[in-house]
Amino acid sequence: MTEFRHYPEIAKLGAAHLYTPDLDKSLWFFHDILGLHITARTDTKVYLRAGMEHEHHSLVLEAGDRARLDHVTWRVKRPEDLEGFHEILTGNGTDVAVEPPNAEDGIGESLRFQMPSGHKFRLYYDVEKTAVADADRSVLLNQPYRSWHHGISVRRIDHINLWTTHDPLAQHEWLSDNLGFKLREYATGPHGRIGGWMSVTPLVHDVAVMKAGPQETTPARMHHLAYWLDNAQDVLRASDILVEAGFALDQGPGKHGVSQAMFLYVRDPGSGHRVEIFSAGYLIFDPDWEPIEWGMKDIKMALAMWGPTDYMPHVDDNIMNTTTEA
Amino acid sequence: MTEFRHYPEIAKLGAAHLYTPDLDKSLWFFHDILGLHITARTDTKVYLRAGMEHEHHSLVLEAGDRARLDHVTWRVKRPEDLEGFHEILTGNGTDVAVEPPNAEDGIGESLRFQMPSGHKFRLYYDVEKTAVADADRSVLLNQPYRSWHHGISVRRIDHINLWTTHDPLAQHEWLSDNLGFKLREYATGPHGRIGGWMSVTPLVHDVAVMKAGPQETTPARMHHLAYWLDNAQDVLRASDILVEAGFALDQGPGKHGVSQAMFLYVRDPGSGHRVEIFSAGYLIFDPDWEPIEWGMKDIKMALAMWGPTDYMPHVDDNIMNTTTEA
Amino acid sequence: MTEFRHYPEIAKLGAAHLYTPDLDKSLWFFHDILGLHITARTDTKVYLRAGMEHEHHSLVLEAGDRARLDHVTWRVKRPEDLEGFHEILTGNGTDVAVEPPNAEDGIGESLRFQMPSGHKFRLYYDVEKTAVADADRSVLLNQPYRSWHHGISVRRIDHINLWTTHDPLAQHEWLSDNLGFKLREYATGPHGRIGGWMSVTPLVHDVAVMKAGPQETTPARMHHLAYWLDNAQDVLRASDILVEAGFALDQGPGKHGVSQAMFLYVRDPGSGHRVEIFSAGYLIFDPDWEPIEWGMKDIKMALAMWGPTDYMPHVDDNIMNTTTEA
Amino acid sequence: MTEFRHYPEIAKLGAAHLYTPDLDKSLWFFHDILGLHITARTDTKVYLRAGMEHEHHSLVLEAGDRARLDHVTWRVKRPEDLEGFHEILTGNGTDVAVEPPNAEDGIGESLRFQMPSGHKFRLYYDVEKTAVADADRSVLLNQPYRSWHHGISVRRIDHINLWTTHDPLAQHEWLSDNLGFKLREYATGPHGRIGGWMSVTPLVHDVAVMKAGPQETTPARMHHLAYWLDNAQDVLRASDILVEAGFALDQGPGKHGVSQAMFLYVRDPGSGHRVEIFSAGYLIFDPDWEPIEWGMKDIKMALAMWGPTDYMPHVDDNIMNTTTEA
Repeated sequence: MTEFRHYPEIAKLGAAHLYTPDLDKSLWFFHDILGLHITARTDTKVYLRAGMEHEHHSLVLEAGDRARLDHVTWRVKRPEDLEGFHEILTGNGTDVAVEPPNAEDGIGESLRFQMPSGHKFRLYYDVEKTAVADADRSVLLNQPYRSWHHGISVRRIDHINLWTTHDPLAQHEWLSDNLGFKLREYATGPHGRIGGWMSVTPLVHDVAVMKAGPQETTPARMHHLAYWLDNAQDVLRASDILVEAGFALDQGPGKHGVSQAMFLYVRDPGSGHRVEIFSAGYLIFDPDWEPIEWGMKDIKMALAMWGPTDYMPHVDDNIMNTTTEA
Repeated sequence: MTEFRHYPEIAKLGAAHLYTPDLDKSLWFFHDILGLHITARTDTKVYLRAGMEHEHHSLVLEAGDRARLDHVTWRVKRPEDLEGFHEILTGNGTDVAVEPPNAEDGIGESLRFQMPSGHKFRLYYDVEKTAVADADRSVLLNQPYRSWHHGISVRRIDHINLWTTHDPLAQHEWLSDNLGFKLREYATGPHGRIGGWMSVTPLVHDVAVMKAGPQETTPARMHHLAYWLDNAQDVLRASDILVEAGFALDQGPGKHGVSQAMFLYVRDPGSGHRVEIFSAGYLIFDPDWEPIEWGMKDIKMALAMWGPTDYMPHVDDNIMNTTTEA
Repeated sequence: MTEFRHYPEIAKLGAAHLYTPDLDKSLWFFHDILGLHITARTDTKVYLRAGMEHEHHSLVLEAGDRARLDHVTWRVKRPEDLEGFHEILTGNGTDVAVEPPNAEDGIGESLRFQMPSGHKFRLYYDVEKTAVADADRSVLLNQPYRSWHHGISVRRIDHINLWTTHDPLAQHEWLSDNLGFKLREYATGPHGRIGGWMSVTPLVHDVAVMKAGPQETTPARMHHLAYWLDNAQDVLRASDILVEAGFALDQGPGKHGVSQAMFLYVRDPGSGHRVEIFSAGYLIFDPDWEPIEWGMKDIKMALAMWGPTDYMPHVDDNIMNTTTEA
Repeated sequence: MTEFRHYPEIAKLGAAHLYTPDLDKSLWFFHDILGLHITARTDTKVYLRAGMEHEHHSLVLEAGDRARLDHVTWRVKRPEDLEGFHEILTGNGTDVAVEPPNAEDGIGESLRFQMPSGHKFRLYYDVEKTAVADADRSVLLNQPYRSWHHGISVRRIDHINLWTTHDPLAQHEWLSDNLGFKLREYATGPHGRIGGWMSVTPLVHDVAVMKAGPQETTPARMHHLAYWLDNAQDVLRASDILVEAGFALDQGPGKHGVSQAMFLYVRDPGSGHRVEIFSAGYLIFDPDWEPIEWGMKDIKMALAMWGPTDYMPHVDDNIMNTTTEA
């Protein structure tokens, strides 16, 4: 009888590592306004996490010449999954660099490689569970920081949305074949796939990969990084806080058809990186989920069941130009 | 090199099969008030599901002499997982009956067996994805029924809470060893484990098994079946609807420490079965989650961060007596 | 010593009387979707009220050739205030018709007259407090209909927004001098007053009068009639219900700067009359409230603190053209 | 023809003046946790107001030997109403002291007197509209402080609840005859009136006067002072913040039948004074509102439509003993 042996699996989105030309202003945005907590910092880097996160960080802000996404990290399910993914990725012709612990603070040994689109990923298993100072700790034993600690008080990282000038379909297939992401919903335009929402968890998406316009100057860009709140009402409170702090909301608040999420988008004024604040939505537990296709006639509903409807890939150049490079 | 072979896995809670001495009244409660939809019925059985559910049913109501939980169904991740679980269960000394398709309407071949506590389970993979009548269908392509269709409009089944006069620790270990449930949070009393919340999904619990008091007359009981709403505010609206319909809330609304859920409990007036209406809470994506222990000094916080605090295992006999038998 | 004698006062907005070319469709919208209740009807007229209203109606729908606002009714504070207002109005040169009871069903003796803008008003004191059928009655002794009875379940009429091709400032002064409305907030454009929000109650406005564009074909138009919900989240639920029923939201959901209200606008498909669904906002209890001026640089904030910002008097002709005539 | 002359009227609840034996701790509670703003202070007194309040203060905290309510202030509608009330009160045999401006900081000339129950009131018209520092100011022109400035961020004072060992009915009649308060809802026990909710505004109550138990040691006590939030969800957030800060909620969150308010009660740890955090509810615009009577069979619904139901005048001695003296 065949021994059981786990296929390697990704457990979760770990973090985004972002460059910003104005670290102080970005820190003001992500810490003071969004309400992330700082777990470590150097002269040029700050590590942050949300109030419900136990791991070392879900965001790295690094000072740099220009705003760009450096890479995205993913935590694997078991220590031996790093070896399993190494085997699969190299077997499929992807160059994989094995990096020692602390290549990124708080992270153990890791694998680095890139998608065909040029987006860079890191896989890791070991990670520091950073302690919380007594003054900040929740009365809830299952929560690191006390609720509503400061600012918008986002709860956890939710997903990342990547844009590419390459064929998105090819990226979706690559993510499925190599990393086990399942396609949950996708949009089809007149010339084929324009975007897909994929996950390894019951979230509708841990990652989305969308088609960027031809005017984008690099193949690998980030559209946004999303953080979670528990209630739609909390997104409305976030809108108040942002406008009171001088922000113009980039889009929303509204409700996406895809994922059914209550959302708003806002830009980090230090870098232009777009952040989505995200709530509600639905979870997928059915193991045989059939990906939902949104065709051209459905695209407005896909983007916004209600709220702004001016967010349209391949239509609105301003939107495109404001993704940040990877 | 060893071939990968998946360990068998449970994908999700499928359904609860409940007996009720007053099917009409129970149907009024679950259909008209909670807002479930009927997908099939016979003279003595009704199959229901929530508005966001694609599968045939998450609840079976069957006419019977007295209120009791007949059994709980779980969907496995892959067709071959039925064989895998059969191997594991029988290898561990559990009697497993293989039942043909449609032993329960809409369900394919299944395995039936019981926990050491006497609670009966059914595992299945194949299930009918029941179509929705045009008049009831959502404009959202990813949602079967339109939002807020009728009544409280619960969205999906969430979890089931089982009570036993046996040692709960032994049940938790059995669920872990045989079915892969992970312990997420647990409560410890002066004489040991009094309850545990376990899941195979990122939900804090798909199932809880708690210690029942000695006055319970059978070893296998159900404390409650839980359905999900998207926002805490929706639970307050549910409270309004229930009180307007003549219900006294059993407990809540309030917020559990365990799972951080916004909750209320109410009884089906046809059977006395307790239903939890549940929102918010948190998700666990960390693959090395350390189970959270709530000791005796934490038990009030575990049960209610705020809201009613009179719900205390081993203390309140009235609560105990109102679980329904399995 | 001078005897005290009350100045006549308006207590509240009573109702809007609207003509619709498709009474059945309008009734579907106001009854089935918004959730108003029918208290009386004839072949050509239907009287409706919201779930928290005790009086006979807050809306009259009457079959007519085209959509228009017939008139707005206001309830005075004391029976003798009808005489007081008659004295003031005629003293100021306004023609006032005294109409016998039941000129409008459920309403006692009333005064009819029109503003300089041509908008027609009716003042009344006596009104039938229509009983609620037992099956529909709330368990709350202070509420007529049970909460969440059907549809969006709006709670009460809130305000009416009138547009005029005349000078809005003159209308505001007329409303203040004759009927005691206090100016609470106003907007100033490059050529003077473009709108004002006025009330006799602590609501920021019972009535607004705004400048219409020159392309409007009559001097007296209605921009919208507003109904109240208790929570911002309830407005989001209303958005879901409307989109599920096939509506495209006219504007919103969003948050006005003026009044701080959470809002959405939607059109009655039978008539094109615009309805606002409205929550939150603030109340004015200060007796020496200084009217808030929003100048041209503030106008976007005045219209939407967040949410849609494309609603701009004198800018967007489509908005203008869609007010309905009085 | 008779000249119009306004009857004197109360416009609004102004403030509560509370003594506390631990001013620092009380200030931590009212400022840091509730989120009030300090507008003035001396060694022994602190003046505070909520984020949506324009006037100098709605709360005075004064250091004192023991917790007690000193007096309640009410703003009149017009400057000449002070004279009008003086005439009425003295005409009815009440001793009235005329106090010069700044008897209370920020307040002009005022009248002091007491109810038959011994509760002390101050009437004033002139009041300082305290400016807000630029750093704290809202982007909304109609709001002093920016939204969600700190802590729970209560929005405005709502009402005060007074308890008396005298006959409450006599107090209600006195408030009606002398100050124009209208009875909106009342509760009747086996021996007559046990409480009444009264207002001069459309709020269901600006003041309630309830029957205290015989064990209360002074005739004039305060049960609670209430501050407003915009949404029921905001009360749930307040619950989180309070429990995270170490508070046990005194009662709630829940929904009152009387007033239909979403509520919670919590005690100032510096003084034991009870504060209600309050949202939703309904407004009364009908000028001929018939007071709602809640009899003994209705009392549970009156106190809590849902949420805690253990709050019962004349039944629960612990509740009684925890009112604070006036």
